[in-house]
Amino acid sequence: MSHSSLSEQQRASLLEQCAALDTASLSDALDSLGIDAGLLGIVQQVPGTRCSGFAFTVLYEPVDHSDGFKNAANYIDEVPPGSVVVSSNAGRLDATVWGDILTHVAVQRNVRGTVIDGVARDLDTVTRLQYPLFSRGRFMQSGKNRVQLKATQVPVEIGGVTVNPGDLIVGDASGCLVIPADKAEEVIQRAIAVENTERDIIASVGQGLSLAEARRLHRYDQPWLAAAAKTPSAA
Amino acid sequence: MSHSSLSEQQRASLLEQCAALDTASLSDALDSLGIDAGLLGIVQQVPGTRCSGFAFTVLYEPVDHSDGFKNAANYIDEVPPGSVVVSSNAGRLDATVWGDILTHVAVQRNVRGTVIDGVARDLDTVTRLQYPLFSRGRFMQSGKNRVQLKATQVPVEIGGVTVNPGDLIVGDASGCLVIPADKAEEVIQRAIAVENTERDIIASVGQGLSLAEARRLHRYDQPWLAAAAKTPSAA
Amino acid sequence: MSHSSLSEQQRASLLEQCAALDTASLSDALDSLGIDAGLLGIVQQVPGTRCSGFAFTVLYEPVDHSDGFKNAANYIDEVPPGSVVVSSNAGRLDATVWGDILTHVAVQRNVRGTVIDGVARDLDTVTRLQYPLFSRGRFMQSGKNRVQLKATQVPVEIGGVTVNPGDLIVGDASGCLVIPADKAEEVIQRAIAVENTERDIIASVGQGLSLAEARRLHRYDQPWLAAAAKTPSAA
Repeated sequence: MSHSSLSEQQRASLLEQCAALDTASLSDALDSLGIDAGLLGIVQQVPGTRCSGFAFTVLYEPVDHSDGFKNAANYIDEVPPGSVVVSSNAGRLDATVWGDILTHVAVQRNVRGTVIDGVARDLDTVTRLQYPLFSRGRFMQSGKNRVQLKATQVPVEIGGVTVNPGDLIVGDASGCLVIPADKAEEVIQRAIAVENTERDIIASVGQGLSLAEARRLHRYDQPWLAAAAKTPSAA
Repeated sequence: MSHSSLSEQQRASLLEQCAALDTASLSDALDSLGIDAGLLGIVQQVPGTRCSGFAFTVLYEPVDHSDGFKNAANYIDEVPPGSVVVSSNAGRLDATVWGDILTHVAVQRNVRGTVIDGVARDLDTVTRLQYPLFSRGRFMQSGKNRVQLKATQVPVEIGGVTVNPGDLIVGDASGCLVIPADKAEEVIQRAIAVENTERDIIASVGQGLSLAEARRLHRYDQPWLAAAAKTPSAA
Repeated sequence: MSHSSLSEQQRASLLEQCAALDTASLSDALDSLGIDAGLLGIVQQVPGTRCSGFAFTVLYEPVDHSDGFKNAANYIDEVPPGSVVVSSNAGRLDATVWGDILTHVAVQRNVRGTVIDGVARDLDTVTRLQYPLFSRGRFMQSGKNRVQLKATQVPVEIGGVTVNPGDLIVGDASGCLVIPADKAEEVIQRAIAVENTERDIIASVGQGLSLAEARRLHRYDQPWLAAAAKTPSAA
């Protein structure tokens, strides 16, 4: 199921469900399906923010100076609302591919966040606007004349994981992960079960059970199953 | 002096004294005794928190898949109040060994903090609970089926320094260090003298002395000595 | 133009102008002049702080133990108001060269911030005082008996860029950069033009232009030119 094959209503429903789910629960759901999903090395830059949305991918490459002057990329004009921009700069730390202008335009276009395999600048503005930005770090040197846009809406690889255009991206204080679009519904249902299982375990511990007892009672070996679907505990 | 050889009253007294001491002062005291103590690479994850407590050590190893399914570890049920959990995962960054369930149980058991040679998840929850967590970083992928518990309450090595069960662990915004249990009393006395010396120096500078004069006056070459024990300054 | 060749009034004027400029705009201005300026790897340690001032450089080297006991360095007594201390410890992560005493004295002397190619300690105090500190990280082990002062007010290299005594240093949430003293006036004028150009672009996007249109209108290919000096847009 590619991005375009989801109806607006399906997209809105997925985003609404994701908004209430942690990356940890989603990761457990993805693990239960054997899908590698965590973007290793990508770190939340604005404390307290989180994001979820459909990947709009952007691929940069080092500048080819034989081509003459390179203007800044204006791809943001094409990013639809509900997107998370996923910008690959090969992990490069000395040339930024995100800053205050893009942040202002993104906020105005209801873009839901940005993930950068590299660095961003204007972090004071990004923080003031509480814009969800995830990257390897921060620097202030422009990408202009250092890197150039190679392509948009192509698959990009970050930390060993491939992000395809239209995949679901979720980010919080623990990091960012990618959910393949055609698995999103199943992953979300399992993640909801994981969160319910964990809530039950925490409640049982609060009532005096040991963690071992609580985990056995609530089947922490199968947390992605809804309570009704779980094999009754032997305990 | 192993952990068990301290009386409850001695333990409480050490913890109370440590609660008022910075890692910097404790490190200077440990330096004065020739003891390497700083856990290099371990970083405070929740700004504004600090912790001190007796090490309960946990050692993980990569999963041996020939053993079949591995459940999550429930060691937290055995951690006594006043402990700091010290969890060694060999610095691994892609598999977490701490998350929201352990945090909730730790808070409930009056565990005073956690140090991870590796990464943790559910940082939004950890931050909301203001739980003192120190680690190499953050990620969201579970350790389940990636790493398994090898042992508890054994010596572990973090950043080149050995942590023994029952050692005193102190962490603040500058990082974490370990105080051998049998040296804790001496280290704390010296650290108190260091802090008094520094307070006197800062006060003297505030009254107009140069730093050179203030340091000479208050014997910054021997900051771990109580004022009465210091050789009078030549100044 | 060396530091000493600027009048007090010129110095005050440069500082006042810099206080309103982001490192991103200054970096674009420096790029337009072909000057490498960003200190790669140096990170803001106290969120929300920024600094600008004239570099007072400090160079450390590993302790030569054949020399006997080394006292802490007291160079801070000589740092003039309006300075930023730039302390080079060769990127070393296990021995601090900044802490609470230096912070207190710096605040008292109207020193405007500190940049460390290495690590600092007493981050709780530094944060409480909202002192602008930029470094590779944090640790608690003293530099005492690990490193020693080699020289002050000599050129130092940080992240591939040379900082000369008297250069202008500016730091914010995106990092730190150095502006050669004899280029400071020109760099600041260009940075002001960059900020005006960006403000105009953001305003135009707010009024409904695409980013491509807004950048063309406001000549984002020459952002460092004042509006009056720009070639009229072809758009």
